Parts: sequence; C-alpha cells; structure tokens
Amino acid sequence: MVPVDGIGEVEPGDALGSLLADACDGMDEPLGPDDVVVISQKIVSKAEGRVRDLGSVRVEAQARDIAAKLEKDPRLVQLALAESRRVLRADHRALIVETHGGWICANAGIDGSNVERPDEVTLLPEDADQSARRVREEIREARAVAPALVIADSFGRPWRLGQVDVAIGCAGLAPLEDWRGRHDRFGRELTATAIATPDEAAAAADLARDKVSGIPAVLIRGLGDLVTSNDGPGAQALQRPEAEDLFR
Amino acid sequence: MVPVDGIGEVEPGDALGSLLADACDGMDEPLGPDDVVVISQKIVSKAEGRVRDLGSVRVEAQARDIAAKLEKDPRLVQLALAESRRVLRADHRALIVETHGGWICANAGIDGSNVERPDEVTLLPEDADQSARRVREEIREARAVAPALVIADSFGRPWRLGQVDVAIGCAGLAPLEDWRGRHDRFGRELTATAIATPDEAAAAADLARDKVSGIPAVLIRGLGDLVTSNDGPGAQALQRPEAEDLFR
Repeated sequence: MVPVDGIGEVEPGDALGSLLADACDGMDEPLGPDDVVVISQKIVSKAEGRVRDLGSVRVEAQARDIAAKLEKDPRLVQLALAESRRVLRADHRALIVETHGGWICANAGIDGSNVERPDEVTLLPEDADQSARRVREEIREARAVAPALVIADSFGRPWRLGQVDVAIGCAGLAPLEDWRGRHDRFGRELTATAIATPDEAAAAADLARDKVSGIPAVLIRGLGDLVTSNDGPGAQALQRPEAEDLFR
Repeated sequence: MVPVDGIGEVEPGDALGSLLADACDGMDEPLGPDDVVVISQKIVSKAEGRVRDLGSVRVEAQARDIAAKLEKDPRLVQLALAESRRVLRADHRALIVETHGGWICANAGIDGSNVERPDEVTLLPEDADQSARRVREEIREARAVAPALVIADSFGRPWRLGQVDVAIGCAGLAPLEDWRGRHDRFGRELTATAIATPDEAAAAADLARDKVSGIPAVLIRGLGDLVTSNDGPGAQALQRPEAEDLFR
C-alpha cells in the first residue's frame, strides 16, 4: 500500500484522474493496470461541487424537531434529510438514514472535516460508481493505464463501535468476489463466502493514510487478479436489497 | 502485507505462537515488535479444541423448528443456539445470534470450511482476546518480540452484501484509534472519528490471503505507531453496548 501525496486542494471541476496521475508520477513504480487506487469521498465530493455552506440552509420543521431531539445542528439535519429517501433511526444522538443513492449511514454521509471553510460540509457524490468510472477514464486518458478505482468513506456499523472505511463507488473491481461453489483444500464446498473486496480495499487503504494530514488517496498493489478491464456493476451491487434485509 | 505460509495443519493443544514464530523465520525480515500479526479464527479454534463433530450433536426441539424454517442443518442450528445468549433474527435462511462472547453474527460463527473431516465444524474461541494475548505471549517467549496480534473472522453485515473480515480478538493494538478532539489541517475538530483499527487490519489481511490454499496468517508491517506494549482491552471493546445500539 502506497499513500499518494501531493494532490493538493481539490476544487470544483477538477479532473481527479489527471491530478492522481500527476501525483503518482513521482513514485518508484509508475501507475500500473494491476493497481487499485482508493480515494476518499471527500475529494470526489469537492471535485463535483457537492459542497454546501451551512449558513445558506433553510431549516424546516421536521429537521428542527429531529435536531432538537438529537442535539445536532439543525442545518446539518436539514441537509441530511434532503439527501435521504428515509430515516431509519433518529435516537441516541444518531441520525441513520437511507440516502437517495441507497447507502445506509449516519447523517447521509455529510460532514465537515477536511473542508476549508468552517461552515462548509460535503455531501456524498450523487452516484459514486459513476464518479469512479469517470476518474478511471481520466487516468486512462492521462496515462493509458486503467487501474481499478475505489471511492471510500468512513461508516459506522450496528453492533460494533468505531468506524471503518467502506466502498461507496468502484470501477474495475468486482464488488463481490464469489467463492461459493469453490472448494477448500479438503474438498469441502465453501458456503456463503462472497467477499466484499472493495470494502476490504477501502478498509486497508484507511490504515495507510493519515486523516490529519489529509492524504486522500492510496494505491494498493498486488491485487491484479481482482482488477477487471470492464468497469463492472460498481459498489451499488454491495447494497443488500431491502426484501432480503433483516435489519431495516 | 506478507502472507505467512508453512504453518501446516493445526492440532488441539498446539502453541500457535511458536508455530507462527517458526513460520516467520523464513521471511526476508524477521518478526519485529512493530508488526501486526493477523491470524484466522479457524486455527485458533483448532488449537483450542473448539471443534465439534456434527454426528455427535443431539438436536432439541427449538433447533429442529428453526432449522426447518431456515432450511439449515438442524445439528448446526443446535450448536449455534448452544453458543448463543440470544437469537436476533431467524428468517430469510439466516440465523443471526448474539454469542455468549458478545459477537453478533450468523450461525454463532460456526462453520465447516477448511476443516479436515466432512462432519466437523469449528466454534468461535471462547474468549478470543485471551487467545490473542496467549499467542502474543508465546511469540514473545519464542523470539523475544511482541508483535500485535489480531484474530479475524469473516462476518456478514446488515445492509451490505458479502462478508468482510473483522477482529474478534486482539492484543497490543488499540481497538479504537480515537481521533476525537484532534483537528484537521484546517483547524476543524474531527468529530466522531474513532477508527476500528483491528477491524481494518483484519479486512486488509484478508486481501492478502487465499481462502482455498488456507493461508491462516498475514503480517502487516508499517503500523508500528499503533502497536502497544501492553495488551490493552482487546476486541471486546469494539462491542457496542446494547443500551447504545439502535439495531438490536
């Protein structure tokens, strides 16, 4: 795993793929087709202009009520509700929603760390799989290689404390590495073993970066077997359909 | 990340720490105090004799009923119930329980892949934090270094498809790397950012091993800042208290 430094502040409209390609030029080994590039949601949101100023948010009644109950900033709650198709829980100072994009997470993934201005927050990309495909394509145009692309964000989990990075978008990496039907070394079938590889890649990359210094990208090398030339179905394929979900 | 090969079949009573130390002797760089050793639940369970023969399980009425509903092996359900303090869900062919050790997972973590005999399954270690501390101590006795130790198992997640490896035991690695109160590079406080480092280490290690070949251990290097000389509270500190849990 190699942290990618030197991307600098990302502005709306920036072509992340070409910034990434430039930043990788200084590395010992150039960006290759077997690499997996994990980037933070934050720079994707910034590049896509998914930044909001809390000062310009008009708070409605529902948001005001929920914010009072949860002791949260009502403007943040207003934004979170606008980004969501439903509220799963609003309790214990936590607002857990299902976003329009289908992600279940706290505050619709909205937060203000590593954003320049004090009242600014980022929203999740509208379609992070499409973002991943676009960034991959920009890298391909810039350097004629197409590493896999994963967009990562920190999510909490039910039952377990703390956050881990998971994939909210990907391109060129199968979302579920399916071991079902394969056999272990004793000839026993491996059952129900579909590995959420992009989530594991996101978690791994988080170990290699430093949230304070704000390093927004990490290369994972050695996973070439998992990189596909086509972009594939993206991280959306990791969303468990509601009908099969036991905890919604 | 370095897969550790050459551990061979683990038998009840084996000292895993000394097997690991031996297996690491062949590496370019010797086992060091900054390493994080991630090992699979499976070898820990085998070493601790937490292996059961389905043929000797006596199925009771509750297990028979649940098994019929879920289309599962009633003997497996019987074992899972015996290992659990409560059933959270028994639906959609899934049995989600809270184990006596406090983990919420499918089938109480019982499974039969990578076990020699066709009717044998492994149970989770009774106290995987204690297991991690013991293995760490065995390594210390064998080589006079005390790398951090993580015991990993594959868990499914609500809302997201596929499995990722998480930590069920650890020693010498803070379970929650707490960034709260620290500030980002713009001077904004990082809120609610406690990273479940052992879970991310478990997920990362899973990318480096191959379930079919059964490589049961991976070294993660470069995380020396996170390794502590004392064993710490273990992975149990990652269990969200029921009173704070919104999805139980």
